[in-house]
Amino acid sequence: MNAREDAEAIFRAAVERVDPEPMVNRAVRIEEGAAGTGSGPDLVVGTELETLRYPLARFDRIFATGMGKASARMAAGLERALGDRLAGGLVAVKEGHVEALEKIRLLEAGHPVPDERSVAAASALLDLGPSLGTVLTERDLVFVLVSGGGSAILCSPAPGLSLEDKAAATKLLLASGATIHEVNCVRKHLSAVKGGRLAAALAPATVVALVLSDVVGDDLDAIASGPTVPDPTSFADALGIVRRYGIEERLSAAVAERLKEGAAGRLADTPKPGDPCFARTRTILVGTNRLALGAAEAEARRRGYDCLVLSSRVTGEAREAALLFLGIGKDIAVSGFPLTRPACLIAGGETTVTLRGKGRGGRNQEMALAFLAALGRAPKDGEGLTFLSAGTDGNDGPTDAAGAFADLKLHRDAEAAGLDASAALAENDSYAFFSAAGGLVKTGPTNTNVCDVQVLLAT
Amino acid sequence: MNAREDAEAIFRAAVERVDPEPMVNRAVRIEEGAAGTGSGPDLVVGTELETLRYPLARFDRIFATGMGKASARMAAGLERALGDRLAGGLVAVKEGHVEALEKIRLLEAGHPVPDERSVAAASALLDLGPSLGTVLTERDLVFVLVSGGGSAILCSPAPGLSLEDKAAATKLLLASGATIHEVNCVRKHLSAVKGGRLAAALAPATVVALVLSDVVGDDLDAIASGPTVPDPTSFADALGIVRRYGIEERLSAAVAERLKEGAAGRLADTPKPGDPCFARTRTILVGTNRLALGAAEAEARRRGYDCLVLSSRVTGEAREAALLFLGIGKDIAVSGFPLTRPACLIAGGETTVTLRGKGRGGRNQEMALAFLAALGRAPKDGEGLTFLSAGTDGNDGPTDAAGAFADLKLHRDAEAAGLDASAALAENDSYAFFSAAGGLVKTGPTNTNVCDVQVLLAT
Repeated sequence: MNAREDAEAIFRAAVERVDPEPMVNRAVRIEEGAAGTGSGPDLVVGTELETLRYPLARFDRIFATGMGKASARMAAGLERALGDRLAGGLVAVKEGHVEALEKIRLLEAGHPVPDERSVAAASALLDLGPSLGTVLTERDLVFVLVSGGGSAILCSPAPGLSLEDKAAATKLLLASGATIHEVNCVRKHLSAVKGGRLAAALAPATVVALVLSDVVGDDLDAIASGPTVPDPTSFADALGIVRRYGIEERLSAAVAERLKEGAAGRLADTPKPGDPCFARTRTILVGTNRLALGAAEAEARRRGYDCLVLSSRVTGEAREAALLFLGIGKDIAVSGFPLTRPACLIAGGETTVTLRGKGRGGRNQEMALAFLAALGRAPKDGEGLTFLSAGTDGNDGPTDAAGAFADLKLHRDAEAAGLDASAALAENDSYAFFSAAGGLVKTGPTNTNVCDVQVLLAT
Repeated sequence: MNAREDAEAIFRAAVERVDPEPMVNRAVRIEEGAAGTGSGPDLVVGTELETLRYPLARFDRIFATGMGKASARMAAGLERALGDRLAGGLVAVKEGHVEALEKIRLLEAGHPVPDERSVAAASALLDLGPSLGTVLTERDLVFVLVSGGGSAILCSPAPGLSLEDKAAATKLLLASGATIHEVNCVRKHLSAVKGGRLAAALAPATVVALVLSDVVGDDLDAIASGPTVPDPTSFADALGIVRRYGIEERLSAAVAERLKEGAAGRLADTPKPGDPCFARTRTILVGTNRLALGAAEAEARRRGYDCLVLSSRVTGEAREAALLFLGIGKDIAVSGFPLTRPACLIAGGETTVTLRGKGRGGRNQEMALAFLAALGRAPKDGEGLTFLSAGTDGNDGPTDAAGAFADLKLHRDAEAAGLDASAALAENDSYAFFSAAGGLVKTGPTNTNVCDVQVLLAT
């Protein structure tokens, strides 16, 4: 049993599960009708956790739209799944993130900073029927392929606002210390496409959104700013937030005016839960950290490990989370609980790094380095532990690595080479450390993103 | 099902498992011989994890000694277990931490700062036979009752050193940033009793040490400085440490001289693994965080919870560990993994708090407050979660509480009362917050200590 090899294979199984093309291809299929009575085929959409089933005869045409960095590859999977049954489509993607497609047209737009192309793409999607040279009817189904980055790729300032108004408001909010949920609340109320407004614009077609989640917890209203889901927040909430952070006076006049008018009930708010537009809209998570962890678990079991998926919501400071993993690993090594060796603990999420030094790295390499440094300082009970933390997008911080390994052999080799894990950690210099010591995990860009994965083996 | 009541009962089951009197009473018993052949009774010592068995006829006499804050209550349990079979004993305890005993005499000494009584107690124990008015033989068994605080309660400066020499060296080390393992390494080499030297001094008797561990990971050489276990460190290590931290020149001349002489091989080092004195010495952990968590698990199952003991080594910053627990709880609530509701996740360990504000609290109340603040900021998926973190010694920081609860009801009640969890957390002001909001867990002093316990319920 080669533990590092196993850990990497388990991580790669997680990434493969959320590769957008096969992921969507697997999530969408035509099957004989449920009763098998010759009533005609069904369209089945979903995952092992949840599926939707429609009699295919209910629809005259199936279209595709969507937005996000992975949405071109999602579109390729949808084309393969539906073949001739797909009538056409229009999907907005990040500049350069394109695929060769047969029926679906791509619109490239700016990311992470939205540009005029983002505005044009939003207009085209909000007016999808005419953009496709037709009129959407009740007998049409529209797939919406949603992936991370969609917030910037589709940008539609509400009437009376400019792109600059919106950008300046976002920047002010971020600098003020507002949480991402608060930023999103305000942004949705400055947009014509975010916060469920796309679902409303696709009426009267049936809408099935397939979502690849890059957000811990998979809040549907946070992924790509929730274009197809109800917005639980109101204009009044948005106004409250800019006031709470004391930035109302610094917003552009048009933005401040819109929030005040909206809070006074003089503008239509984002569609709320219960709005009729959602009666014909379904949103299915087809790619999540949890689904990826499930595939990792299956691979670990296949390789003979007693396995536990602990959490898909590992957050907080990367170096602190490392200590939890090390503690659990030592418990397994010593006492066989909560798992019996050979054991595999799997987790995922997205941590943060508070920069203290001037080094280079990412949250995954930092977590592995913190694990390594703590293991080296207290090696007792640490024999046989192998830890891996890596990003499913293959890109950890401003580096070409996805993440890194940690085990006692690596620590000994590093020490022998004169490398000091604790000193590197103090400088947040994980990339240089692992480059020199060995132990980087490199996958190249994976074209997907469901946050990060941790694999801890005790052999 | 009242979740707070359940959480507290589960915590209390953990504490009861390590109550020193019943704990030792349960760990020591006389049973019919293993074969049941009338070969005479056996002395059985241990826990559900590990037991030792001796034919009682092997020993003429059984004595007790020991050191630590809980050792008087451990002695009471031993007296009850052995009755007339106990010949006598001498146990060193913290001033005031006494019990009414029949056969075992107590010596009170200073703690946390050792004093002349600590020196006298160490001398008496190192010379146990004469102190008890007898001579120890191969046919004697000596129980050593070890609990936290033993390092200060027994203090025996090595020949040529004063109490002040040792205290000054310890103080210098602590101020230099040395780890507790490094401090212990140096201290053991300035002592005549630490680092296995008591085991050597009790020769030729058989020695059975019963240990109540207040150290995460239960390193036997760390608890009360390991008076009955081999010392893996050497004089050379100790000298290396004082040099590494640049304090060699600031040590007293006697201390510096001893370390140099020892490192040069001119003084007897602490007994090492393999030393003959350990051939007749056994050390049994009778009270640990892990054993306490096992009792908590049993209580949780009894109350109908699907249960997982995650780790007995939760360390690192308290507020960061809270995020892990919250993430796992939300996963359970949403997806039923790793547990099915009603679910109970149990963990233990000892976290730290980096002081940022001027408030009052302890690591357990801080963890509960961090959980509460994060839950309040993102209540989604948090309904039905109840968290408790508390110290098994009943004493969290400089407060009269053991710890605190967190759940959404508490957050709502606190908000309604104008209390801000995030602001209190920023000030490390957990005690004032929970005093006002309700949610403190109070047990009073429990006379035991196996670090902390966390209980997370998802109902």
